[in-house]
Amino acid sequence: MNPDEVPTEAPARAAKKAPSVVIVNTGDGKGKSTAAFGTALRAVSRGWKVCVIQFIKSDAWKVGEREAAMRLGVEWWSIGDGFTWDSKDMERTEAVAREAWRVSVEKLRSGDYGLVVLDEITYPMNWGWILTSEVVRVIRSRPPSVNVIATGRDAPEELIAAADTVTEMRKLKHAFDEGVGAMRGIDF
Amino acid sequence: MNPDEVPTEAPARAAKKAPSVVIVNTGDGKGKSTAAFGTALRAVSRGWKVCVIQFIKSDAWKVGEREAAMRLGVEWWSIGDGFTWDSKDMERTEAVAREAWRVSVEKLRSGDYGLVVLDEITYPMNWGWILTSEVVRVIRSRPPSVNVIATGRDAPEELIAAADTVTEMRKLKHAFDEGVGAMRGIDF
Repeated sequence: MNPDEVPTEAPARAAKKAPSVVIVNTGDGKGKSTAAFGTALRAVSRGWKVCVIQFIKSDAWKVGEREAAMRLGVEWWSIGDGFTWDSKDMERTEAVAREAWRVSVEKLRSGDYGLVVLDEITYPMNWGWILTSEVVRVIRSRPPSVNVIATGRDAPEELIAAADTVTEMRKLKHAFDEGVGAMRGIDF
Repeated sequence: MNPDEVPTEAPARAAKKAPSVVIVNTGDGKGKSTAAFGTALRAVSRGWKVCVIQFIKSDAWKVGEREAAMRLGVEWWSIGDGFTWDSKDMERTEAVAREAWRVSVEKLRSGDYGLVVLDEITYPMNWGWILTSEVVRVIRSRPPSVNVIATGRDAPEELIAAADTVTEMRKLKHAFDEGVGAMRGIDF
């Protein structure tokens, strides 16, 4: 195979400055939340106040990224009830997700944060537990300095429409499909 | 739109334990490197030795993720010569990439690291500056405890074949296309 040509022309410059952006990481592949956490790390190291709200994971999950992020000063709220298939009381699980959204609204509206990560928010949206139209409305009317990242599979069209940058993480291959379980240090 | 059904059945369990995995983040979208850095953060917080080698970015780029990762104890080597279109001496730029690969081989073979990130390595591979077959050979023959993440657009087929998990970050929408420049704290 012949090598690709080495680019010698700079791409066109993007000159506009946005006060903030809305980013959506969706798709069935790995890296949706992980990329959001990587951005949180970047933001906090620039001196921003950063807040992560998790809609599925509960406080019982002592995940590595959480510990590292908190050490760097990221505010981290895991207000989920775990996997729905482990739920013993789906009404409670739903109520927990609504509570996570209530906290998110507070954080988004406060204007205190340079970045708010709404991790795995698409699931309760798609299950009808929190209203997509309300999420989109709160995001659109946020204070202009607040960047937002929303993650999860099957991002609703309305959310995509409200976003500046949307990436679909597509699974081309996954160790899991070969029977390999999630690995501590890599997957959590 | 009707809400999706809430999953109440756990997915099949993956029971195999891999000593380590090779992960490739490719595609034209955002999040390839950022997800790799998120994983580095996870790994280092689990007490692993982690090493990031950057093939394009040079030491002159004081990116936020680097500072944060180093604060957490990640070893970070930016052995790139910057964007090729800024190069005043392409032979030097190529030599710098080969040097980054030399360092990578050393780190991979040492067995000292739980995770080695080869950031943007696909570019010098695709330009014919470092041999894909050699990269794949070194990755395949690494000490079994060493996890590897390789990032960059257009990952070569051979590299994909050697990987356990491959995600294509696909651009659905990008603020850049609306003329919005890269943002400090979000993009670097």
